[in-house]
Parts: sequence; C-alpha cells; structure tokens
Amino acid sequence: MKQNLTIVKVGGKVVEEASSLNDLFERFTQLEGHKVLVHGGGRSATAMADRLGIATKMVDGRRVTDQAMLEVVTMVYGGLVNKGIVAGLQANGINAIGLTGADLNYMQAVKRPVKEIDYGFAGDIVSVHVDELKLLVEKEVVLVLAPLTHDKKGQMLNTNADTIAAEAAIGFSKYFDVELVYCFEKPGVLEDAEDDNSVIDSLTYSEFKSLQESGAIHAGMIPKLDNSFNAIDKGVSLVRITNIPGLKDGGTKLLST
Amino acid sequence: MKQNLTIVKVGGKVVEEASSLNDLFERFTQLEGHKVLVHGGGRSATAMADRLGIATKMVDGRRVTDQAMLEVVTMVYGGLVNKGIVAGLQANGINAIGLTGADLNYMQAVKRPVKEIDYGFAGDIVSVHVDELKLLVEKEVVLVLAPLTHDKKGQMLNTNADTIAAEAAIGFSKYFDVELVYCFEKPGVLEDAEDDNSVIDSLTYSEFKSLQESGAIHAGMIPKLDNSFNAIDKGVSLVRITNIPGLKDGGTKLLST
Repeated sequence: MKQNLTIVKVGGKVVEEASSLNDLFERFTQLEGHKVLVHGGGRSATAMADRLGIATKMVDGRRVTDQAMLEVVTMVYGGLVNKGIVAGLQANGINAIGLTGADLNYMQAVKRPVKEIDYGFAGDIVSVHVDELKLLVEKEVVLVLAPLTHDKKGQMLNTNADTIAAEAAIGFSKYFDVELVYCFEKPGVLEDAEDDNSVIDSLTYSEFKSLQESGAIHAGMIPKLDNSFNAIDKGVSLVRITNIPGLKDGGTKLLST
Repeated sequence: MKQNLTIVKVGGKVVEEASSLNDLFERFTQLEGHKVLVHGGGRSATAMADRLGIATKMVDGRRVTDQAMLEVVTMVYGGLVNKGIVAGLQANGINAIGLTGADLNYMQAVKRPVKEIDYGFAGDIVSVHVDELKLLVEKEVVLVLAPLTHDKKGQMLNTNADTIAAEAAIGFSKYFDVELVYCFEKPGVLEDAEDDNSVIDSLTYSEFKSLQESGAIHAGMIPKLDNSFNAIDKGVSLVRITNIPGLKDGGTKLLST
C-alpha cells in the first residue's frame, strides 16, 4: 500500500501577508503524513517590478514574462517568497527545502511557443522527475516548490503555480497516494459566488461541466478545476479546493466519477 | 577510506559575468569526484539595491544588512544568482540543487551581536548539519550554496560566502576527504601583489603569519587565509587559493604544518 502525501498549493495572498502566512504555518504543521507546499507570489512580483520601474503585463490572468520580468520572478519566487516560507517552516519544526524546477532537474519545461500572444519566458511543463524528491519526502523533508521551471539549456522559466502543483501531484502519484489541496481565499467552489456559505461539498467532472455550461462557475475557477480533474484522471486520488481554515478536510472535493 | 569531495567557492565577479561564468561551468564540470559550489553575489546585490534606491553600507568589507538589504540579498543570492548557476550547471549535465542555510536546516546562525558596529541581519554560524546533504552528494548531486543562513526562528540572515565555504568544508570533513578551493580574480597568494607571476606555491600557517607581520600579504587576503587555516585545523585536508584557470590544481596550497 502506498503512503499518503498531501500537496498543498497556496495562492499569492496567503503567502504574502504575515498573519495568513503564520496561520498557514500552524495548520500546515498539523497536517499528518508526508507533505509538499507549492506557493505563488504574483502580488509580490508585481510589487517588486513596480519598484524597479518594470511594467507588469497580464493576458488572460497570465503574466507576460520578458527578460526583466524573468529576473524579477526568479528572485521574488525563488528567493524572497520561497526562502521566507522555508525559514518559517523550519521555525515550526518542519524540515523544509525550497526548490525550483531547475533544482535536481525535477521539472523541465519549454518556452511557450508564440501564437497570438508572446508570453515571453513562460514555461510549459514537459517532464517531471520525482525520484530524488521521493527520497527526501521519505525522510520527512517537506518540499517547498516555487512556480519556476527551467529548460535544461540554462534558461529559467516562469510557470503557473497551480500547474506546478497538479504536475507534481501527478508525478508523485506513482509512489504515493496523493491528495492535492488548492488553498485560496474562498472556502471552496461556491454555488453562489457572493455567498461563502454556498460551498459545494463535492463535484464530479460531469457536474462541473454542466455548471460551467450554465455559467454558474466563476470564470477564474475554471482553469483550476480543469487542472484538478486532469490530475485526478492521471492518478491523483483526491483534489480539494478550500481556504486555510479548511486545510485539513474542508472545502469542495473533486471526484473522479 | 573516505571519498573525495571538492568544495569550490567562487567570488562575486566570477559568477556575475556571463563569460567567466561559462568558463567556470566548463572547468567545474570537468572536476572529478563529488563537488559542491559556494557562490557570492555582492556586486549583484549592490546593483539591485541601487536600482531600488537602497544605499549599500560596508564596514571592513562586510555588508551592513538592514531589513531592506536583507530582502535584497535573500532574493539576489537565494533567487537570481543561485538559480542562474543551478540552471547553468543543469545545462552542462550536472544535477545541481541550490540551497541556503534554511534549506534542510543545514546551516544555522545567530544574528551578529551589536558591538561597535550594528551589522543588522548578519549571521554568525552556530551549527552545520550535513547528514541529509551527504545523501545528496553520494547520489552525484552537486550542491550550490548561497551565502544565506537562518536562525531557526524564522529569520533569514546574510553570511559571508568564504565563511559558508569553510564551515561547510569542516562539516563535510566528517564524511569526506575534503579539498576546499577559494577561486577569485588572482592566480593565488602573491609575493608581490602587483605581479601575477609571483604566486606562492605553498604556505604553512607560520609562514603566513611571518608574511603577515612583514606586511607582505594584501590585507584583503588575511580573512580568507585565516578562514582557510581554521578549516585545515578542523579536518579539511587541503585548501587552495587560485583563479578559474587554476581550478583543477593551480594556485597556492595551504599546508597544515
């Protein structure tokens, strides 16, 4: 029987404010079993870019990453945010290690081909290698994954944290019984976007698709749900969508059938 | 018999210019046996601080690290410089991983006590834990160490790269036969600071001390040599001081007797 591994993805807002970050550390520390933390950091990157006089350009919610912006995200995601989380977890007695896709070559990507939009140094994942990471996980080390990949030709690339979390979850499902938890501001997938008490308890792919058709699902949730069902399809046991208070077992469960 | 481990420390100038960095990658790749790379990045940190309107203050060649400067060095050393080197080594077929002292809690420090000078968030090393790093080294993983430590209470700290290299070398000498190579702009310790052909082939501690007394050794070299002889004293087999072309076996050898 495989051991359990929980992969928690936390969005920008959670990791960028001291109060919610401390709350995260506390609740994450209490989670039992092996665990991995994947973080964003978009707000910090945008703020740092502003201070450097570099304009942030987003298309469909995705960052256009030119050379100057790549430097910003490499240092903000890989340095400032990642090491802040690692040091914070160490303070909570968790033996954490921070990684980008270049470290141990665990996540390789290609620069996104230019079609209508040139996203610059955005990385589309091509392969995930978790063999060495597995050894660390088995030694009770907690991996802290920054939203950065590389092309194995010397180029760092900027990759969406939700996608990193889903691909890491799929990669680890070879060795572990993986639960993937997307942790954001809302308590789950809501029936009514304005009502935080309208959390949908569970959702199958066909239910998601019919809600999507009827326009009942907030547009921002759709890529997250697509990522999630793809992960379930490829071996991840369970995906949950929740907020920090729901980290342990709250929110919306996505089901394979 | 212990296996060999070479720890190479490269200074700021070497890792901050594309041409010397590529030269380093090539020569470092050719080194046989287990290896670790320790890097600086002071010039990049100063340049980034400038761009952010943060003044750089140095006392006796050491950076005063207030909160704003700590953010700069955390993102520049831990993100920009470290991940650039890791991605570059991966492109050269070396399975590298970038680490700060917070990662795997491998190097713990305390904020330097304020005496005449308040160095701010400068970290004085208190303990080195290489047990998990050893497992990575034995799997042919190359560690890339940034000049950052932490206090295990959630605080990142700025620690001199020469000191990181020496303390890592001492820590690893429990498990490996360690050679520590300080790689900088000059081909070695020079008899005449103006003449690059005056490299001293080898130097014992007493020879170093008499050269120091006679004023023949450049002041900037003295902390490096003190660090080196301390490392030899504590179990490191050999320390060499050289430049990139001398990486394999050139420069000045420091001897225990």
